[in-house]
This record gives sequence, structure tokens and C-alpha cells, in this order.
Amino acid sequence: MLYLYIMNNFTYELIHQSKKSRARVGRIHTPHGIIDTPNFVAVGTNGVLKALDNQMAKEMGLQLMFCNTYHLMLQPGTDVVKKAGGLHKFINRNAPIITDSGGFQVFSLAYGTVKDELKSKGQKKSDSGVLKISEEGVLFRSYRNGDKVLLTPESSVKAQKDLGADIIIPFDELPPYHIDPHQLKLSLDRTHRWEKRSLEEHLQNPNQQAMYSVIHGGIDPEMRRLSCNTLTALPFDGHAIGGSLGKNHQQMFDMLSYVMPQLPQEKPNHLLGIGDLTSLEPCIKLGIDTFDSSHPTRCARHGLLFTFNGMVKILKGSHRTNFNAPDNNCTCYTCTNYSMAYIQHLFKANELTGYTLATIHNLHFMIKLMEHYRTMILEDKL
Amino acid sequence: MLYLYIMNNFTYELIHQSKKSRARVGRIHTPHGIIDTPNFVAVGTNGVLKALDNQMAKEMGLQLMFCNTYHLMLQPGTDVVKKAGGLHKFINRNAPIITDSGGFQVFSLAYGTVKDELKSKGQKKSDSGVLKISEEGVLFRSYRNGDKVLLTPESSVKAQKDLGADIIIPFDELPPYHIDPHQLKLSLDRTHRWEKRSLEEHLQNPNQQAMYSVIHGGIDPEMRRLSCNTLTALPFDGHAIGGSLGKNHQQMFDMLSYVMPQLPQEKPNHLLGIGDLTSLEPCIKLGIDTFDSSHPTRCARHGLLFTFNGMVKILKGSHRTNFNAPDNNCTCYTCTNYSMAYIQHLFKANELTGYTLATIHNLHFMIKLMEHYRTMILEDKL
Repeated sequence: MLYLYIMNNFTYELIHQSKKSRARVGRIHTPHGIIDTPNFVAVGTNGVLKALDNQMAKEMGLQLMFCNTYHLMLQPGTDVVKKAGGLHKFINRNAPIITDSGGFQVFSLAYGTVKDELKSKGQKKSDSGVLKISEEGVLFRSYRNGDKVLLTPESSVKAQKDLGADIIIPFDELPPYHIDPHQLKLSLDRTHRWEKRSLEEHLQNPNQQAMYSVIHGGIDPEMRRLSCNTLTALPFDGHAIGGSLGKNHQQMFDMLSYVMPQLPQEKPNHLLGIGDLTSLEPCIKLGIDTFDSSHPTRCARHGLLFTFNGMVKILKGSHRTNFNAPDNNCTCYTCTNYSMAYIQHLFKANELTGYTLATIHNLHFMIKLMEHYRTMILEDKL
Repeated sequence: MLYLYIMNNFTYELIHQSKKSRARVGRIHTPHGIIDTPNFVAVGTNGVLKALDNQMAKEMGLQLMFCNTYHLMLQPGTDVVKKAGGLHKFINRNAPIITDSGGFQVFSLAYGTVKDELKSKGQKKSDSGVLKISEEGVLFRSYRNGDKVLLTPESSVKAQKDLGADIIIPFDELPPYHIDPHQLKLSLDRTHRWEKRSLEEHLQNPNQQAMYSVIHGGIDPEMRRLSCNTLTALPFDGHAIGGSLGKNHQQMFDMLSYVMPQLPQEKPNHLLGIGDLTSLEPCIKLGIDTFDSSHPTRCARHGLLFTFNGMVKILKGSHRTNFNAPDNNCTCYTCTNYSMAYIQHLFKANELTGYTLATIHNLHFMIKLMEHYRTMILEDKL
């Protein structure tokens, strides 16, 4: 062990720093168990991974699950989850959970996602439910029942207290990618004020939860530096990298290569919303500890199965009579029990079980892939 | 043991005949394992129960699974299943399977289901893919790729040989419920000729499979008697009761009360397509051994959970904060792990996992219910 950062029931242990890069192996201790890093965080927006149940996800070795406060606020309502005794009890997951602030979803409604926006070159304004954005927060209309909902740094943190995840995220603004530097600076300043308010709200009742900041600043090095300086000066337990991460992989890697050295080595970090196979290794080399993404589970539901020899497109014609497992070397439940031909058949027959089996496989792959990266780092090969 | 009917690898063992009714406990030995009777047969149309995988269904104790030849002929094609080494291997179910002949689906296309037809009082002709019905068989167009497919007694049995289920069914005609006695007699005679042709085709290569006849005759006692006489005279391994079973429960019970005494006690029987909770006990008392129905799994996907204290409607408003299991006395995976509030949330959030959990519960209930009936019979209480 190189470092041990202890705060409440939350400890970050730096186990090994690679000699070849900023890649590092660590261990995050939370009230609901350990997260080995680097690691992949599967997204269970509504308190469940799509097409999989939480016991199975845990048994497979999924150490950290990402749930979305925005969705859970609207359905079933954080009051319900609180009454149940918190998210761990409500969804029956006795393992670490992270929730976000809801900001990302609300601003995606207002501005569209970065992807939508890149397509429309900043021209398109979506017909969103967002009614008002002010210093206080964001007023929007629930897509479920039409109720007006005010999301502020304080209400977001209160919602996350009701949920009771092990790691929580302060409320931030997700500025559009197409934003001029002056507007970006105004947005960044407000995000910093909001994150500070979130942290203050959190520290009134830490409740065994850890809070990570969200470093913003788009792809502007000065703004990112300002964000690192501002947020690392506050007593956050870790730091997430969010905001616009660029319009391609290279922009993101460039941004991370100047951001990562500015983050404190003794605290864990997280890259928000990234988990595609192309990004993982370069980001790990830049020192990222955890990644959340719905990419592997979404790919699964589209019949794209990950293997160490590339992607298997389950609907490919020749797999109609391919009675091998998707990956003969894979030990997952799906590969142990079923063939490509059968899984293709389930997809073609619109059987939900096909989604479940594909999801199990891709999630298992991600868990094994991250184990592999950790081993490589421990051996100074990455 | 009272009787032992042995044929090939298929044996029916009559274990106990109730002193209070025709209800009986038996055991069917097949090449892929035992079926305790009376028992419920879950429907896995495409070689899978909806929202559940075959390993889990088997581990839960589902002894017999019903697959539909019509669907499997069109997707993935029985040639694919044959190449895989048969249905058990293709779907990885090392336990008994029954397939039907495809006749029911083809004639449902032509005439609509009995339910559709009762609604339209025999007036409505559906715009089906059926091109020609003749003495040879039925020519129809595949809904998947537009190919013309000829289904005959011989081709149905050949398809079922490719699938290789433990129990197979001869090709029959499903006459419309609104049919005059003369037409019913013509249909019945043709069904008998088709079943005989199916049996002859089957006996050329029994291949460790058992074939049950399908007793027809609608709700006409004379026609049913004729069907029993004709079909029990042939060397079928068991008898299924099919055709129009009446327009309400009472008509079905009346029909079964004169049909059942006409079936040989030493062979197993099956009631096709019935498995609702109202029907089970009266039918068991009339001597039915096995029931197939998609009712419990379909109810599950509509959020209707079966318990020994009645039906739980998971979407009911008050379950929003009901943190009890659907059935506190139930030992199923779902009740052991999750609350009504959580399952309701999954349904409201359109999460597929909700269907899976509800299906597990209802299937477990059916398995326990049938165990209960067997115990009652063994104690002469039914």
C-alpha cells in the first residue's frame, strides 16, 4: 500500500503506481464493500441493470453500480426509497452504489446531449420540459406526471441523502458543447458555486456517504485548470471528470492528460459516462480509477457481444448454425450454457431472454477486462 | 405403484388413485427425466419461457416445457435445431419437452382463436396467411419471410423428429367453435385420418419419442365418444384433449366428465392449452395429468402475481410503499429478494427485469400448487 486516504467510512488505498504510466491500482473501501480500481461501473438508471437482476449482477462481481437520481426522483420518488430504508435496501443490493446529481439529465433535456448537439451544430433546441434555469437551480416539468420539480444543489443532495448511495455527486451545470468562452466561464463559475453549495449541504449530514466533485471546463485547458484548482481546494472525497469531454477520443485524451496530473493522487477519481472499449486503456494510463457507461449493456441489447478477439455480431447470418459459445474461452453463464445460434434465435424471435443473456456476457467481459488491466498495472506492463 | 405402462423409453407409472375422485398421482418417465403428475407445463413457444432462461426454469423444478413446432419451423427452422442435435441441445434443456404439431397455430390463423371467434360469433374471417386446406394438409405463407409452407401430418411429424421432443403430437384440424354438426363430423373424420397418418409416420422411426393423440369432437358427447373410440384403438402412448373445449368453464368440465372415463387409465393424458387457476382443481378431479398454458407467465408480465391468498396486482397504488414480498410465505427467488414496491417500480419504469421476477414467482407458484395437489391426492383429500 502506498497511500491510505481515510474519511468517515470511506477509504482510498493506493496499492500500486505503474512505472510505465499514470495507471494505478487501488481499492476504495465503502460502507457497502470494496471497489477495486481501475474498474467499470455498470449503469442501472432505475435501480436495476436493464434485463438483469441485482443479485445476479452482484454475484457476477459487479462492485459498483451507477443509479440516476433524476429518474429515481420521478419514479418511484426518493421518498419511497427513503421509506424503504435507502436504495441498497429498496433494490436489494448489498454492495457499493454511486448516484449522480440529476444535473446531467436535466441539462440534456434543455440542451440535448452532446451527441445530439454535435449533429445539429448547436442550432437545435429540443422541446424540453425545462422551464427555468437560474442561480437557484433548474425548474422542470416531470415527464411522468407533469408536476413542476425544482432541482437545486440542496434538493439534489437531499434526494441523494434519501437514496443513500455510497458515493454521491454535487449538482452541476452541463453546458452545451457549442458555447463561447465567455459563456463557458459563466457556466463554470456557477457550477463551482453549485458544487460548493452541494458540498455544504452534504457535510451537514455526511451519513457515511462520500462526495466526489465534478471537474468541468470543457476542452479549454485554462478552464479545466481553474476547475481543478477550485474543486481540489474543497474537502471532496474524490473527483469526477465531467462536462463536455470533447467531440472525439483524441480531444478527451488530450484534456485528461492535462487534467489528471492536477488531481490529488491520494483521492479516487471517476470519468463520467465513458466506458467504450477504445477509451478504457488510454484513460487508465492517464490515471482514471473508475468509469461508468451504459455502453456495454446497451451493445448487448443490440446483439453486440464483446470478446477479447473482437466484437461478435450475434445477428450475423453465419451464426444461424454456429453452435459454439459467443466466446469459447469465456466462463460466463451465457457462454457456459448457450450457443451463438440459440442467442441469435432469441434475438430474431424477440425473446427478452436474449437481452438478458447478452447483458450477462458483456458485463462479465467488462469485469474480466478490468481485472486484466489491474494485473497489467501491478506488473508494470501498462 | 398401481400400473406401469412401458413403451420404448417412455413409461407411465400410476402411483395413486384418489378414493374421492378420478384424481390420480403418477410419474411419467422420459429419456430426459421424470414428470410427476398432475403437473403444470409451462409454455416456451420459441424454445424459451418469456423473460426467463432455461437453466433457471429447470432449477426451479419445471419438469415439462411446451414448445411450438409452428414457431420453431419458421424461426430458426427445424433444420437448424436438427443440426444442433435437437431441441434439448439447442435450447440447453436437459429435461422433458413436449412439442405440438403446428396445427393449432395454422388453424388459428385461418379461423382465428376460439376467443376471437366467440366474440365475432363466427362471422369474422381473419386475413390469414393460409392459402389452401386440403386432405393433404395446409398450405400457408410464412409470416417471417413470405415463403409458402405445406404442413401435413407427415411434414409435422418430420419437423417434430428434427426437434426431438420427448412427447410429440399428431397433426389435427382445429375446427371453428361455430360449426354445424355435419361440418364438425367431416372435420373430425379428417382429423382422425391425419392423426393416423401422423402416428404411422412416427412409428417408422419412434426415436425414443412418445406420441399422444388429440381427442377432438368439440362439446358434442357423441363426437367426443367417436374420437375416444377411434384414437384409443390406435397405439398412441397417451392422449391429449384438444379441439374446442367449450365457451365457458362449465362446458369444459361437462365435456371432460364424459371424455375422461373413456380414456385408458394406464396411459397418461394431457389437457391442451388450459392452466388457469379456476380450471385446475376441477380438471384434476376429473383425472387430468398435465396442463399446458401460457396463462401464469402471461399474467406475470401483466403484473398479476399468484399467491395462495389470491392475486396480487403489482401496479395497485398502495403497493407503491409496500416493502413486503409479494407473498411472505413464498420461498421463490423473487419473494426472497425483492419487495412489492420494488417490483411495482420496475414495471412502472418499463424495466424488463420486472417481467423476469414476476415470471419466476408465478412459475414457482404453479410448481408448488401442483405439488400441493399431488399431496392432497396421495392423502385422498381431493
